[in-house]
Amino acid sequence: KRIAVLPGDGIGPEVTQAAVDVVKATAKRFHHEFEFHYAAIGGAAYDAVGEPLPDQTIEVCAASDAVLLGSVGGPKWDQVAPEVRPEKSLLALRKQFNLYANLRPVKAHEALQEASPLKPEIVEGTDFVIVRELTGGLYFSEPRKKTEDSAVDTLVYTRKEIERIVETAFQLARSRNGKLTSVDKANVLASSKLWREIVEEMRTGYPDVTVEHMLVDAAAMQLIKEPSSFDVIVTENLFGDILSDEASMITGSLGMLPSASVRDDSFGVYEPIHGSAPDIAGQGKANPAGAILSAAMLLKQSFGLTAEAQAIEDAVERVLKDGYTTADLKGGRVLSTEQWTAKVIEELD
Amino acid sequence: KRIAVLPGDGIGPEVTQAAVDVVKATAKRFHHEFEFHYAAIGGAAYDAVGEPLPDQTIEVCAASDAVLLGSVGGPKWDQVAPEVRPEKSLLALRKQFNLYANLRPVKAHEALQEASPLKPEIVEGTDFVIVRELTGGLYFSEPRKKTEDSAVDTLVYTRKEIERIVETAFQLARSRNGKLTSVDKANVLASSKLWREIVEEMRTGYPDVTVEHMLVDAAAMQLIKEPSSFDVIVTENLFGDILSDEASMITGSLGMLPSASVRDDSFGVYEPIHGSAPDIAGQGKANPAGAILSAAMLLKQSFGLTAEAQAIEDAVERVLKDGYTTADLKGGRVLSTEQWTAKVIEELD
Ligand SMILES: CC(C)[C@H](C(=O)O)[C@@H](O)C(=O)O
Ligand SMILES: CC(C)[C@H](C(=O)O)[C@@H](O)C(=O)O
Repeated sequence: KRIAVLPGDGIGPEVTQAAVDVVKATAKRFHHEFEFHYAAIGGAAYDAVGEPLPDQTIEVCAASDAVLLGSVGGPKWDQVAPEVRPEKSLLALRKQFNLYANLRPVKAHEALQEASPLKPEIVEGTDFVIVRELTGGLYFSEPRKKTEDSAVDTLVYTRKEIERIVETAFQLARSRNGKLTSVDKANVLASSKLWREIVEEMRTGYPDVTVEHMLVDAAAMQLIKEPSSFDVIVTENLFGDILSDEASMITGSLGMLPSASVRDDSFGVYEPIHGSAPDIAGQGKANPAGAILSAAMLLKQSFGLTAEAQAIEDAVERVLKDGYTTADLKGGRVLSTEQWTAKVIEELD
Repeated sequence: KRIAVLPGDGIGPEVTQAAVDVVKATAKRFHHEFEFHYAAIGGAAYDAVGEPLPDQTIEVCAASDAVLLGSVGGPKWDQVAPEVRPEKSLLALRKQFNLYANLRPVKAHEALQEASPLKPEIVEGTDFVIVRELTGGLYFSEPRKKTEDSAVDTLVYTRKEIERIVETAFQLARSRNGKLTSVDKANVLASSKLWREIVEEMRTGYPDVTVEHMLVDAAAMQLIKEPSSFDVIVTENLFGDILSDEASMITGSLGMLPSASVRDDSFGVYEPIHGSAPDIAGQGKANPAGAILSAAMLLKQSFGLTAEAQAIEDAVERVLKDGYTTADLKGGRVLSTEQWTAKVIEELD
């Protein structure tokens, strides 16, 4: 199996290296062979060849079975023309590979209660996944126009686009605790009305899944008030962007959270949700857990290696339970990125 | 001065009555005369005359200097045709009276730390206002279309619409702590790029105000991570809807929070942000503080009665400090809606 590795900017290289090391240790323990093919993305690619997602990188990804991504962006590229900003590479990658489903698991780690802005009794038991539509809506629809005096964006969704993401969410809910929360703004938006109708039509195919509809404003409240009440949340692109970042605060560390951007076949792009954090890049302060857990998602979702993924998740959980943390977390015995990764690898051996 | 009172549905009537009683007590103490003119809105209006915002209600509002609104909606009207749902009355009222600026203050009350899902050290010192654009964007733009197979919504902003709301926010920031956070999604949306450009142009007129731009996803995080870092937040309609509801969780009780929807002259609609809570309607369990503090905003913003507004706010604060609460708050000596209102009135005498 071939894994494309796109380290990107800021702390991207150090956390992807940590993840690659953990995948190698896992491969050794479970007797697999993986090939790793590195390619440039984001600001690093812009600096090298003048664009954030070079053709060569697309080719490396296309020739791979899955992609492990670090992070892109930083103030260094603030003055660069908008079309070639580092962040554009993410949008281009999604569109290029038709990665329409973004999965963001949010799971409370008991060892991290200190680090959360929420009270422990609120966070306790939180374990849900946000399924965000990733290739439609305001992000990609036309017309998009801007003059001196006005600007227009367009929010289009087709039935097909909604059906496939809702299907992904129903399947996931079925494999988890059987509860689906569909988030929309059906009291205002036409696209949300269609969304809600389609969820209603499809639910008959999933009698084992409990479905609730929630308005996006109510969801923004409920995520803080009672995060443990969710199992699977499905929503459109921009609502998903906002809610998944809000949700990332619940557990206390952005640095811990993985994500997957997938499509119908097994190919996918896996990345920690934290940004490139240029202020701490290269100092060994980055939390590699988000990248490591993204690699676990890759093994499970793209390669079907469930036991291997579980082994990594268990190792991370044990290292946290043993009280080892990184600089971004409050409390615990603070280790460097490399040291913390070494602990995870020890647990895997 | 004439005040239109629109009690609406669920707990709307009991909390507006509480607010009216407090305004009457304030008027007595400060030797003012106010007239109160009642009119129907929401489900109550639909039941009476078949539409949620009858012409007669519009006339009563138009003949008044300000409007005090309770809340609208409830499951009773779930099956009603979408165009005449209770919630439509809010959108219609905003458009009818050109109420383009929605102001939502969020202020931590020390006495309510128990009730917040956030840790006390996070909530401490929180005191900001969200300025939400209320008559543009996805809520009102055309085309809006829905077929079986696809749906379209449109997000339009004109320079004029953006300038007037940003102006409102700059003025408010100047009268407060001089910090303005403009929230957009300028890395994706054309309308956000125009928004950001206009904020940049206008900031030269407010050298005393510090301006920061924040992406909406980052803002959704920052509101939970460090709510005390905000002073004034300005944003477009839908982002404002989501962020202000998220923000309403910070203080621990939705029931405490007021809002104002205003325009260039002194006219405005004032309402608590809590919903109609039909499950507790008529039981004396509703928290009247949101409505009472909305009435205080009315006195200050529409009538320029600063001392009177302050007297109400101080009275509310003292009643909370004395440990009196309502059923929605955790801890404290729980009083009924009427009893709690009576305490506030006692403080005012
Ligand atoms: C960088 C930006 C375009 C992107 C998005 O809005 O999708 C990011 O916020 C994300 O969530 O991956
Ligand atoms: C009822 C609904 C249309 C309304 C809105 O989205 O503006 C409400 O959520 C609000 O914030 O006042």
